[in-house]
Amino acid sequence: MTTAYQHLRELHRDAALVKSVGALLAWDQETYMPAGGAAIRAEQSATLATIAHAKATDPRIADLLDECEGHSPLVGDRNSPEARNLHEMRRDYDRATRLPATLVAELARVGSQSQQAWKDARERSDFEAFRPWLEKTLELTREKARCWGAPEGGELYDALIEEYEPGARAAEIERVFTPLGERLSSLVAELLDRGTPPNDAPLKIEIPAERQHAFGLRVLESIGFDLRTGRLDTTTHPFCEGVAPGDTRLTTRYRESSWTDALFGTLHEGGHGLYEQGVPKGENFGEPLGEAVSLGIHESQSRLWENLVGRSREFWQWAQPIAAKTLGDEVGRFSVDELYGAVNLVRRSFIRVEADEATYNLHVMLRFEIERSLVRGDLSPADVPSAWNARFEELFKVPVPDDKRGCLQDVHWSFGLIGYFPTYTLGNLNSAQLWERITADLPDLSQMIARGEFAPLLGWLRERVHAPGRRWTPPELIERLTGRPLSADPLFDYLSTKLRPLYGL
Amino acid sequence: MTTAYQHLRELHRDAALVKSVGALLAWDQETYMPAGGAAIRAEQSATLATIAHAKATDPRIADLLDECEGHSPLVGDRNSPEARNLHEMRRDYDRATRLPATLVAELARVGSQSQQAWKDARERSDFEAFRPWLEKTLELTREKARCWGAPEGGELYDALIEEYEPGARAAEIERVFTPLGERLSSLVAELLDRGTPPNDAPLKIEIPAERQHAFGLRVLESIGFDLRTGRLDTTTHPFCEGVAPGDTRLTTRYRESSWTDALFGTLHEGGHGLYEQGVPKGENFGEPLGEAVSLGIHESQSRLWENLVGRSREFWQWAQPIAAKTLGDEVGRFSVDELYGAVNLVRRSFIRVEADEATYNLHVMLRFEIERSLVRGDLSPADVPSAWNARFEELFKVPVPDDKRGCLQDVHWSFGLIGYFPTYTLGNLNSAQLWERITADLPDLSQMIARGEFAPLLGWLRERVHAPGRRWTPPELIERLTGRPLSADPLFDYLSTKLRPLYGL
Repeated sequence: MTTAYQHLRELHRDAALVKSVGALLAWDQETYMPAGGAAIRAEQSATLATIAHAKATDPRIADLLDECEGHSPLVGDRNSPEARNLHEMRRDYDRATRLPATLVAELARVGSQSQQAWKDARERSDFEAFRPWLEKTLELTREKARCWGAPEGGELYDALIEEYEPGARAAEIERVFTPLGERLSSLVAELLDRGTPPNDAPLKIEIPAERQHAFGLRVLESIGFDLRTGRLDTTTHPFCEGVAPGDTRLTTRYRESSWTDALFGTLHEGGHGLYEQGVPKGENFGEPLGEAVSLGIHESQSRLWENLVGRSREFWQWAQPIAAKTLGDEVGRFSVDELYGAVNLVRRSFIRVEADEATYNLHVMLRFEIERSLVRGDLSPADVPSAWNARFEELFKVPVPDDKRGCLQDVHWSFGLIGYFPTYTLGNLNSAQLWERITADLPDLSQMIARGEFAPLLGWLRERVHAPGRRWTPPELIERLTGRPLSADPLFDYLSTKLRPLYGL
Repeated sequence: MTTAYQHLRELHRDAALVKSVGALLAWDQETYMPAGGAAIRAEQSATLATIAHAKATDPRIADLLDECEGHSPLVGDRNSPEARNLHEMRRDYDRATRLPATLVAELARVGSQSQQAWKDARERSDFEAFRPWLEKTLELTREKARCWGAPEGGELYDALIEEYEPGARAAEIERVFTPLGERLSSLVAELLDRGTPPNDAPLKIEIPAERQHAFGLRVLESIGFDLRTGRLDTTTHPFCEGVAPGDTRLTTRYRESSWTDALFGTLHEGGHGLYEQGVPKGENFGEPLGEAVSLGIHESQSRLWENLVGRSREFWQWAQPIAAKTLGDEVGRFSVDELYGAVNLVRRSFIRVEADEATYNLHVMLRFEIERSLVRGDLSPADVPSAWNARFEELFKVPVPDDKRGCLQDVHWSFGLIGYFPTYTLGNLNSAQLWERITADLPDLSQMIARGEFAPLLGWLRERVHAPGRRWTPPELIERLTGRPLSADPLFDYLSTKLRPLYGL
C-alpha cells in the first residue's frame, strides 16, 4: 500500500514537472520573449498543456486512488496529512478528467494568443482589437464551466470560482461584498468630503527606475524573500510565478513619476513569493500538501505584506532612512509621518493595482459583477466597456477616460481567468482577520517592524499558513487560526481606525 | 500519399515544439534562472527530453516513412526537396530509435546538473569538483556512441561526430588538421619571432558594459540580425540558441577591461543567429528542410561575420565613427588602421573563445586530441588537466596557469558535447572557402562593407547557405557553392595574406 501511495506521489510529481515548464513559458512570454516568438509560444504552451493534462488524467491515478482510499492506515484519520492529500488528489483528478484534452489545448493556445492581443490592445487602448479574443476566451471558459458543472444549489460561475477558491459561492460572496461595499463607499465619501487629506508631495518625486529597483530588492530581502531561489523582473502587469521548488519569480513595473507603485507592487508580489517559498514544495512537489491552498489565502499573504506591513507607520520608521539612502535626498527630506500619510492617501483612481486600500475592494466588486454577468450570459463581451464605464462612475463618481484605464487594464480575462477577481477581496478580508490574531500572538510586533525585524512575523506565517499547503480548506484554515469564520469586520475596522485619524476625523 | 507526408511533417513539428521548450529551459538556465532552481531544472530537462525522445521515436513515423519512401512522386528524383527531407527524417529516426529512453533522460538530467557543477568548478578553478561529473558524462556519452555504433571503417568517436557533422570522420579530420596545424604554428612563430606587432593600445581601454552592449546591439542590427525575433543577453559562456521560429537568442559577456571580447563574441553569435533566422523554420519547423545542416556550416557563418567581416579593414572604416560615438572618445582617437591592426593581433593566449584567428585552430586541435583519447579510453578524465597542460605548452610555448584558463574553460564536455570541437575548425575552413566565392560573386563587397551595406552579403548567404536547410550535406553544399571539396588552402592563404603585412613581413 505504501507502494501505491508512493507511486501516486511520483505520478503527481511528474505531472508537476511538465506544469512547471508551462509556468516558465508563461513567465518568459511576459519578460524576455522577443515579440516574434509569440505565434510559436502559443503552440508550445498548448503542447505542454496537453501533455500536462494527459499526465493529470492518467487512468493509473484512478486505480491508485481507489487502492489508497480503501486502506485504513492512510485514510482512517480523515484529517491526517495522507488522508487530506488523497482527498485533494481525488478532487483534482475528478476535475481534470471532466475536461476534454482538446478543450485544454484550445484554452492554452487561445490564452497565449489572446494575452498577446490584449497587450497590444491595452497599449493602444483599443477594445475592438481585443473583443474577438474576449469572446473566444469567454466561450471556452463557459464551456469549461459546463464540463465541471455548477455545484449543487449554485450557478455556472461557481464552477469557475471553485478552481481558485474551493467552496466559495457567488451568492455568498455577494452577501458579504454588498454591505462591505456600502460601508466602504460611506467611509471613502466621509474621508474625501469631510477630511483633510495627507500631503501627497512625497509621491510626486521622480525616481529613476534603477534606484527603485535597488530599493525594491532591499525591501524584498529584508522581509525574507530569498533571492537565491527567486528573482525580480519588469513586466507590464506585475505577477508572481512560483515556477518550481527553488524557483520563484516576481515581477513589478517602474514609473519614474510614481515610485510608490513599484514599491507596493514589489511588496505585494513579495508576499505571494514568500508563500510560494514557504509551502513544502521540496518534499511534496506536485502533491496537494505542497501547494498553495487557494487564491484567497495567497492574496491574504500579498496584501498582508503590502498593506498591513507596508502601509503601517512602523514600516516607515524602518524604511525612511533606507529610502533616503537608496532613493535619494528628495525622498529623505520627508519625515516618517509625512511618508506614512502619503502612502495612505485615498483617491478615486482608475487602476486597480495602484488603488488604495479603501477603494481597492470597489474595483474588485465591479469586476465580480461584470464577469458574473458575462458567464450568466446577461452581458455580451461587446458591451463590457459601456457596462464597466457606467458602473465605475456609480462607484467612483468619476468617468472612465479610456479603456486602457478601464476594462482593458487587467490581464486576467485575456487568458480565461474568470472567477478569479473575487479572491482579491477575500484575500483582504483574510489578511485583516489573520492580522488580529498575529498581533495578539506577537504583542511586540510593532516595535519589531520598526526595527526591520520581520523574521518573527514571517515565522508565524510560515508555520501556520504556508507549511500546511492544502492540508485545510480556506474556511477551515481561517477558523482554526482565528477561532471564527471569515468576517468583514476586521478589514473595515482596520481601515476605519487607520484612515480617519490620518484625515483628521 | 500526400496525406502520409503531411502527417509525417506534423509529427515532426509536434516533436520540435517539445524540443524547442527544452531549448528555452537551457537558455533560461544560463541567463535568468535563480541558483536555487538548478536541482529541479535538471528534472524538468530530463522530463522534456524523455517526451521529445518519445515523440521522435513514435512508431507511426516508421510506418509513414515506409509508405512515403515507396511513393515515386515523392522520391523519384532523389534530390527533390521532399526526397531529401524524407532521407534525413529516416536518418534521424534511425539514430533516435537506437537510444534507449532511459539513456536519453539520464543524459539530460546529468547534463543539467553537470553544467551547474562545471560553472561552480570553473569559477573556483577546481577541477576535482568537476571530475566526477566529467567521468559520469563521458561514461554516458560513450554509451550513447556504442548505441549508435561506429560507422563502417571508422572509430567510436566518429559515431559522436556524426551527430554534429554528418559524414565527417576523425581520421580524415586528423589528415587535414595535422598539416594545417604545422603551417599555422610556423606562421605564428614567424609573426611573433620576426614581425613587429601592431600597437595593442586600442584594446586596453576600459569601457563600461552598458556602452559595450549598446555598441553590440548597433552592430547586430546593422549586419541584419532581427531584434524583433531575437535578443541579446549576458552569460558566462556566449552562445546562440535558435529556440523556435521567430525566437533566436544570443548571449555574450562583457569585460570592462577588454571591450573587443564582447564585440567579437557578439559578431560570432550574431553569425549563428543570422543562420538560425535564415533557415526556413517558418514553413518547415521540425523538418530537416527547416534545420541547420551541421555545426561546421553553422560555424562557417559565425566565423565569417566575426573574422572575414569583423576583422577586415573595411569593417573598421564603417565601425570606427560608430565606435567613437557609442564607446567614447578614448576609442575614437584611434584611426581605422590602428583599430584594424589591434583586432588582428596574434597572441599565445589561454582562452579559446578570445583567441585570434591564427592560434584559434591550435586550441581546437588540442581539444580534438584530448576528447578523441577520452572516447578511445586512452586517457582517463582524472588525467585531463595534465594532458591538457602538457599539450598546450607544446603548442603555445607557455604554461597553463590554472584549470580555469585550461581544461575547465569550455562548457561543452559538461553536458556531453564530445565530437563537437572539430566542427569549429571545419567552420573556419568553410568560411574562408566560401569567402573566396562570395568575393568573386560580389566584386564590390569591400566598398559595401566600408559603407555598412551588409545586405548584399547577407542576401548571398540567405539564398545559398541558409535557405536550403538540410537539403544538401555539408560536403555537397561546399562543393556546389565553391566548385571543389573542402581544402585548408583558402584559410591559410587568407591568414597569411592578411597577417604578414600587419606584422611588417
